[in-house]
Amino acid sequence: MHRLALTDEDKQARDLFVQWLKELGLEITVDEMGNIFGKRKGRSPQLPMVLSGSHLDTQPKGGRFDGILGVTGALEALRTIHENHIDTERSIAIVDWTDEEGTRFAPAMLGSGVWAGYFDRDWAYSRADLAGKSFGEALERIGYRGKTQARKWPVHAYYEFHIEQGPVLEKMGKQIGVPKGILGITWFDVYVEGQANQAGPTPMNARKDALVAAAEMILKVNDLPPKMGGDLVATVGEIQNFPNSRNIIPDRVRFTVDIRSWDDPFKNQAAEAIKKEFPQIGQKRGCSVRMEVIWEIPHTVFASNLVIRVEKVASLLGYSNYSMVSGAGHDAAYVCRVAPTAMIFVPSIGGRSHVEVERTRWEDCEAGANVLLHCLLQSANE
Amino acid sequence: MHRLALTDEDKQARDLFVQWLKELGLEITVDEMGNIFGKRKGRSPQLPMVLSGSHLDTQPKGGRFDGILGVTGALEALRTIHENHIDTERSIAIVDWTDEEGTRFAPAMLGSGVWAGYFDRDWAYSRADLAGKSFGEALERIGYRGKTQARKWPVHAYYEFHIEQGPVLEKMGKQIGVPKGILGITWFDVYVEGQANQAGPTPMNARKDALVAAAEMILKVNDLPPKMGGDLVATVGEIQNFPNSRNIIPDRVRFTVDIRSWDDPFKNQAAEAIKKEFPQIGQKRGCSVRMEVIWEIPHTVFASNLVIRVEKVASLLGYSNYSMVSGAGHDAAYVCRVAPTAMIFVPSIGGRSHVEVERTRWEDCEAGANVLLHCLLQSANE
Repeated sequence: MHRLALTDEDKQARDLFVQWLKELGLEITVDEMGNIFGKRKGRSPQLPMVLSGSHLDTQPKGGRFDGILGVTGALEALRTIHENHIDTERSIAIVDWTDEEGTRFAPAMLGSGVWAGYFDRDWAYSRADLAGKSFGEALERIGYRGKTQARKWPVHAYYEFHIEQGPVLEKMGKQIGVPKGILGITWFDVYVEGQANQAGPTPMNARKDALVAAAEMILKVNDLPPKMGGDLVATVGEIQNFPNSRNIIPDRVRFTVDIRSWDDPFKNQAAEAIKKEFPQIGQKRGCSVRMEVIWEIPHTVFASNLVIRVEKVASLLGYSNYSMVSGAGHDAAYVCRVAPTAMIFVPSIGGRSHVEVERTRWEDCEAGANVLLHCLLQSANE
Repeated sequence: MHRLALTDEDKQARDLFVQWLKELGLEITVDEMGNIFGKRKGRSPQLPMVLSGSHLDTQPKGGRFDGILGVTGALEALRTIHENHIDTERSIAIVDWTDEEGTRFAPAMLGSGVWAGYFDRDWAYSRADLAGKSFGEALERIGYRGKTQARKWPVHAYYEFHIEQGPVLEKMGKQIGVPKGILGITWFDVYVEGQANQAGPTPMNARKDALVAAAEMILKVNDLPPKMGGDLVATVGEIQNFPNSRNIIPDRVRFTVDIRSWDDPFKNQAAEAIKKEFPQIGQKRGCSVRMEVIWEIPHTVFASNLVIRVEKVASLLGYSNYSMVSGAGHDAAYVCRVAPTAMIFVPSIGGRSHVEVERTRWEDCEAGANVLLHCLLQSANE
């Protein structure tokens, strides 16, 4: 899958999704962030509804389960409810959140973030991709800039069904993961500036090599977790080097840093270490360093009553299950700020995700969807 | 200047150059590598001729002196000879060598390399740019694939006038540099392969991060010169990272290594260190490493009689001069294998080259062209 947010491919997936919602007779709303909702009315539509979904956009050359399983899983649950003519007390809605991945328009989860009041709508609109195109323009172009305000409304319970994207469930031999919350995340953009020069005649001691400085910083990032302890993970996923010519000493490097931990103090300590040590590395290498924290979210604790429900339903249905934390960010992190939230995980084969070989066994997909169905029904009848 | 080899910009410069050659009534030849020659007949055209030139292509966002000064300097010398109705014993020719920079089609100096018999013509034709277009196609497209064989003929003396591209002359306060030869060069392409995965849920000890491995290798390259001693320089100028997404552990990195030294044993030792240590770093980081030596040229010693002539002429004309070596590769390195060769250097302000601010004072350009003029006349009358 290569379906970056607000591209033609995203539009195609949205169009198909909307068609499927129509086939179920759901009440469809597209808000001004392009979030798509499909509501099945309950007997008491005035009560806060139950919501479930995830996202249809993917990473570049990503997998076909990440996000998509949470949308199609909720769709399957609603279809089952529909086909069995089951009435619920509360309305149940399905959602496709816009730009969860944040690859084209950073930061991630812009759609749910604006909806939950964490980001400003116009700031989100102004986020630009590498080609300089803004989120607002791109949204307009594919025809998914709705009129409804992207603003939270009362939600009784939000469930997000998702692949684990890590190796834990497979290693533990469990079918359903029950995350108690999501790791805190900090994203940095780092800009290193040195001096370009011909690689041959420039003596080593006269160099200001931005790539060498960046390389030292990348190793520093990778060394943070063992130093900080805890469950901290730290990653440099993206790098741009200029002028990027074989025989020119690089003068500009931009790279990203992604730090995550369940323990916010560990994460903050790691961020402080970066802020302190990167300029020292730069100075040693004759380079200037600019760092920008472009996203920061503390760890998210899910609603304990819903987490317990996921666990109970999984056990009741006979699925082995495991209490854990989510290493990946999810729309659930923002929804959790304004509504009771829980997630349902299923194993990723080999722990692989964000890659083409990302895969989850169909029986696990079914198990997760069954857990979701029963959680939705229980919440909708409260 | 952003005039990569065999682009539309290169064609424009070539067209203008050919027009200037015509204005001098020179005999123009374009060979099958696109090398352009303009010959001014001597009284004894059967004698081996005197040749001078350089290249008109540039680095991406490069300067306007590198290469170009050697072509226009020779043109100015020929114009002066022409306007003063000076007859010479031997013919004098000017040359624009194709693809000296090697940025679009690696390795560098394909035009002079084929002419000197170092590279095979069809192999050169098959070299592809990043878009997959071949040198042969690109040459054909701009209409500079000539019919004359690109094969050396007897040359009595070859002079290449060039900016220093380093800080030495400026630092020494000298106007003319007299290189005794060119450093040996080895170019590597390095491919590191790890495993892509979601940055969040993948524990540090389960990672095979290709960028972290590459970062350690980049630092290793930078540490080679102080370890090896001598005048060795080592540079990583170019890097590509995949999938290059902020929250995916990189699984593929390609980068280049450029090693140079006057002492071939130092250079070879450094290359051996890379060949030995990169796979060790890869193994430690769970990554496979593939290395390809795509270019290797030992150090070049210029013809001592011509080097002495450059020195004497400079002194005679009253220009301070300095004996040195060339850190950068030049077409002279290949021509030197088949004909007596020397170079004439002028200072680069701040030692900057391959960048937009590359500059040389006009009086230094003039001094170099005067030295070239008198060297050409002396050789042509031998």
